[in-house]
Amino acid sequence: MKLVDNIQRMSMLSKILKKEGKSIGFVPTMGYLHDGHMSLARAARQHTDVVVISIFVNPAQFGPGEDLTKYPKDLKRDEEMAGLAGADVLFCPSVSEMYPEGYATYVNVERLTETLCGRSRPAHFRGVATVVAKLFGIVRPDIAYFGQKDAQQAAVIKKMAEDLNMDVEIKVLPITREKDGLAMSSRNVYLSSEERKDAVCLKEALDKAERAIRSGERDPGMIINVMKELVTSKPSARIDYIEIVDSKNLRPIAPLSGDVLIAMAVFIGNTRLIDNVIVKI
Amino acid sequence: MKLVDNIQRMSMLSKILKKEGKSIGFVPTMGYLHDGHMSLARAARQHTDVVVISIFVNPAQFGPGEDLTKYPKDLKRDEEMAGLAGADVLFCPSVSEMYPEGYATYVNVERLTETLCGRSRPAHFRGVATVVAKLFGIVRPDIAYFGQKDAQQAAVIKKMAEDLNMDVEIKVLPITREKDGLAMSSRNVYLSSEERKDAVCLKEALDKAERAIRSGERDPGMIINVMKELVTSKPSARIDYIEIVDSKNLRPIAPLSGDVLIAMAVFIGNTRLIDNVIVKI
Repeated sequence: MKLVDNIQRMSMLSKILKKEGKSIGFVPTMGYLHDGHMSLARAARQHTDVVVISIFVNPAQFGPGEDLTKYPKDLKRDEEMAGLAGADVLFCPSVSEMYPEGYATYVNVERLTETLCGRSRPAHFRGVATVVAKLFGIVRPDIAYFGQKDAQQAAVIKKMAEDLNMDVEIKVLPITREKDGLAMSSRNVYLSSEERKDAVCLKEALDKAERAIRSGERDPGMIINVMKELVTSKPSARIDYIEIVDSKNLRPIAPLSGDVLIAMAVFIGNTRLIDNVIVKI
Repeated sequence: MKLVDNIQRMSMLSKILKKEGKSIGFVPTMGYLHDGHMSLARAARQHTDVVVISIFVNPAQFGPGEDLTKYPKDLKRDEEMAGLAGADVLFCPSVSEMYPEGYATYVNVERLTETLCGRSRPAHFRGVATVVAKLFGIVRPDIAYFGQKDAQQAAVIKKMAEDLNMDVEIKVLPITREKDGLAMSSRNVYLSSEERKDAVCLKEALDKAERAIRSGERDPGMIINVMKELVTSKPSARIDYIEIVDSKNLRPIAPLSGDVLIAMAVFIGNTRLIDNVIVKI
């Protein structure tokens, strides 16, 4: 596996691969890789000739007071894991090269970014869309892989790629979970052992919501109340949001019908976790 | 010359050309072609294997009350001219395909867009950057050609391409002028014969400013006053702005030094004309 830490070299490499007729599968990450990332890389390995994983903790998607500076890092371990998943290239650009002095261009996906996480993290998706547009420009992937855990991010990236006529297929793969149901996240490392136990409440609440819908409940307010009750019973949990929306346009629906996305963000202690499920009605 | 009116067909065509190792030169226009556009197309003809001209009157770059609906059109004539200039493809997508219902993604280049035309046309450059990003995604040019007449547009596109790591070279070619000095523009067709005479005042004012700098004047305020005096002496002229800025960052400079851009927008009757000159000090 090749480690590339320079934009121009990555760009040249992609150009050469394209000229050779090779397809590129791309997994953009912020590093501290876990099995969720690995499942994306393995899918890329199956579908495309060359697998590129990027590691870039993107300042533009963190708000003031968020965990940018303490975001977990372990490049050695990331290299090993990327190698095991069959990646060919690990692309790790620097912040100063990605956002040089005088940087001024931002991509904004309207509407989709105004709900859910976009409400509590105002400039977050502008940062996400911008960095992904940049990475697509550099890596020029045929297929890019994202996890369903960041459901809104996946919807935003899909919309951006479609709207800006980017020639890339966006694949969204299922959430990878720990044995007890907690969605894998690099941020899980922040949790104390007590918090780690409480953290399972997100998945428990989603399961409960899904069961309610399966047994005929169509009132989103009722379902959200049951979820809130479950979550707030955990001492370390504080709800950021729980919403039930249309899985495509992310707008609230009542009564529930079609493909609904039940999405939630909960602070467990100081750690903000997200999780979701799509239920087809 | 091939006429392509469909995004997917253009995108496929570009993909095939790339696979064949052909370089693509691209001239994005709003149609009603004139010798300015033709000089861009001829340059593309010299530098690249395949020349694509697009014609798209982009609603996203017109403000309320601007001339979107009456913007001049003559596709027959445009086809002939594009053919004469050696274009291989004339790409004319429809508004409904470029901005389908639910369209939501916009590219914003900050700072550079806040001065000059950006001040009088608030969402203009957001529309320009967005449509050019889209066209670059579809056409995938190696080199794209823009005219120096739209100096701020050229600066914005260059900045966007650099910031978003778009793999395209931006070439900016000199202003093409009528015999009496008026910068070529599709909008010149709006001018009455009286207005047409007055319209030469933009170039006259720029010449006067350039002469003042050459003879040692370094106070932008003094130069702008002289220009204003000349322009306002024409009965049909009303100044939108006259500014002298750094040619790269478009910020005002005083005293004048380096490469300065003298840029102006003047309403001649109801027609808003722009012109500029770069003077190296």
